[in-house]
Amino acid sequence: MSENVYVGVDLGGTAIKVGICNEQGTLLHTYEGPTEVSKGVDTVISNIEKYIRHIVEESPYSWEQLAGVGAGVAGFTNVREGIIVLAPNVGFKDVPIRSILEDRLGKLVKIDNDANVAALGEAWAGSGNGVENCVCYTLGTGVGGGIIIGGKIYQGFSGMAGEIGHTNVVPDLEAIQCGCGKMGCLETVSSATGIIRMANDAVERGDHTSLQSVDTIMAKDVFDAAKAGDEVALRIVHRAAYYLGKSLASVAAVLNPEMFIIGGGVSKAGDILFDEVRSVFASLTPEPLQKGVTIVPATLGNDAGIVGAAGLLIRS
Amino acid sequence: MSENVYVGVDLGGTAIKVGICNEQGTLLHTYEGPTEVSKGVDTVISNIEKYIRHIVEESPYSWEQLAGVGAGVAGFTNVREGIIVLAPNVGFKDVPIRSILEDRLGKLVKIDNDANVAALGEAWAGSGNGVENCVCYTLGTGVGGGIIIGGKIYQGFSGMAGEIGHTNVVPDLEAIQCGCGKMGCLETVSSATGIIRMANDAVERGDHTSLQSVDTIMAKDVFDAAKAGDEVALRIVHRAAYYLGKSLASVAAVLNPEMFIIGGGVSKAGDILFDEVRSVFASLTPEPLQKGVTIVPATLGNDAGIVGAAGLLIRS
Repeated sequence: MSENVYVGVDLGGTAIKVGICNEQGTLLHTYEGPTEVSKGVDTVISNIEKYIRHIVEESPYSWEQLAGVGAGVAGFTNVREGIIVLAPNVGFKDVPIRSILEDRLGKLVKIDNDANVAALGEAWAGSGNGVENCVCYTLGTGVGGGIIIGGKIYQGFSGMAGEIGHTNVVPDLEAIQCGCGKMGCLETVSSATGIIRMANDAVERGDHTSLQSVDTIMAKDVFDAAKAGDEVALRIVHRAAYYLGKSLASVAAVLNPEMFIIGGGVSKAGDILFDEVRSVFASLTPEPLQKGVTIVPATLGNDAGIVGAAGLLIRS
Repeated sequence: MSENVYVGVDLGGTAIKVGICNEQGTLLHTYEGPTEVSKGVDTVISNIEKYIRHIVEESPYSWEQLAGVGAGVAGFTNVREGIIVLAPNVGFKDVPIRSILEDRLGKLVKIDNDANVAALGEAWAGSGNGVENCVCYTLGTGVGGGIIIGGKIYQGFSGMAGEIGHTNVVPDLEAIQCGCGKMGCLETVSSATGIIRMANDAVERGDHTSLQSVDTIMAKDVFDAAKAGDEVALRIVHRAAYYLGKSLASVAAVLNPEMFIIGGGVSKAGDILFDEVRSVFASLTPEPLQKGVTIVPATLGNDAGIVGAAGLLIRS
């Protein structure tokens, strides 16, 4: 075997996940070990190196076949310089991770933030396989985004493109403050956090809902209640879906992507979410901008981060 | 002189404007003749050819120095195939203008729609000179847009990118129907048409405003009244500016451009519009996405279309 392979690293607060991909983006092997944030930056970096060397040794591929390493992390990254500017989960601040890993491994290294690598993973080897231009939404604790143009991550002027969780979609009079400090961001209503907040508000004000009997409400509880016909839960799901659909409509008018890929925990709600999103999108988007455009669930799940990180070497 | 020059064509319903640009986008000479739409497609095309040959003959440049011709037109264009799909102003439907002109002139020809070429003109040789990533709004009868990425027009999946006049910004309960058939588009409030409509509504319902004494209200009348302190006119201008600023904020979160360029007749309102747009943008855009981003008026005026069309040869 002489084909090139690529290692992707998903650097999380609890675990470091690594995986080997071939040039088509197929995930061939994975491995996972503890991050050990409490032991400090040096230990975390040594762990990254250790897990990368380990997975290649255990695989049928030689070290020479490893063409490079990509890494994704939640936080602010300076892609051009290869620096993790701020990643609170792993305790990194201004860490020049690219040059450190390149020195230690003798391989090319690239980095990006978690939302961008997840988008690239889906675009490369997930739902977007073969699609040149797509936009990915990751609905988790927040709403992350990634813009893929010409098969590559689009960074924008200062590396901040794809912050679609902070598109302003909620009308002023209904808006609440987002973690970013502004009012009315998509993230305040269509993230898991937003859905849980709306559910807790309903419970606290005494709305008649089956959620009253749930101890600690999770987004899944709200979706389950909605599927069972609970009107309060249905209203919450529709609100989350409405603003998501509205955001998609505006992004379609700006970027005209071929595909919208929706991933993250909230996307597991399935049809009850997607049906409404597609309906709102259809009602707000001019016909010519809808033509041929699809809205699909992400397919790689938690692997999107590893696959997309490996893809940084080829697709950035 | 052996430098290459480029001819740009602004194909309008009344006049065909042509201009010669150098490789830096400097507009060296212009010429303008009647379109003669009533005489049919063949006459219009012959006129285009005639005016192009005329301007080169009258200029200090030789026909050999002409490296190519670009043309912009209001309507739907198939950029890849070089076809004007539908341009009602000039009576064109499915006209393969590129191949026709290439045959007649023996030169490379490229086409695009008027909003895209105006954006390219400003990005190349106007306000955006030297800026790689910018977004242009043209506030005229409608609201046109153009996305410049890496110095070139971004077309999107089906050539529809940059339709920012149809981003959904007006909340449902305040929305009216746009020409595109959808409710709440930016174009319904921030175009000259939208401003005039709001002013006529105010006059018809008997609002106390100096606009009551204007025979046929134009956008400029509304701005003049606002500048003179007319409260009704001020409310209209603020509404147009508010939704424009809101649209800019959402586009910034998606694309992170370095610059927003605002052109078209409405932009001539000046500070009364720009101050409010900048203020709304600042209030709705997360801090990191504002950093280094500027909002500026277009500088080329009506020449943007000619310059941008000439630029198609180099910048697309």
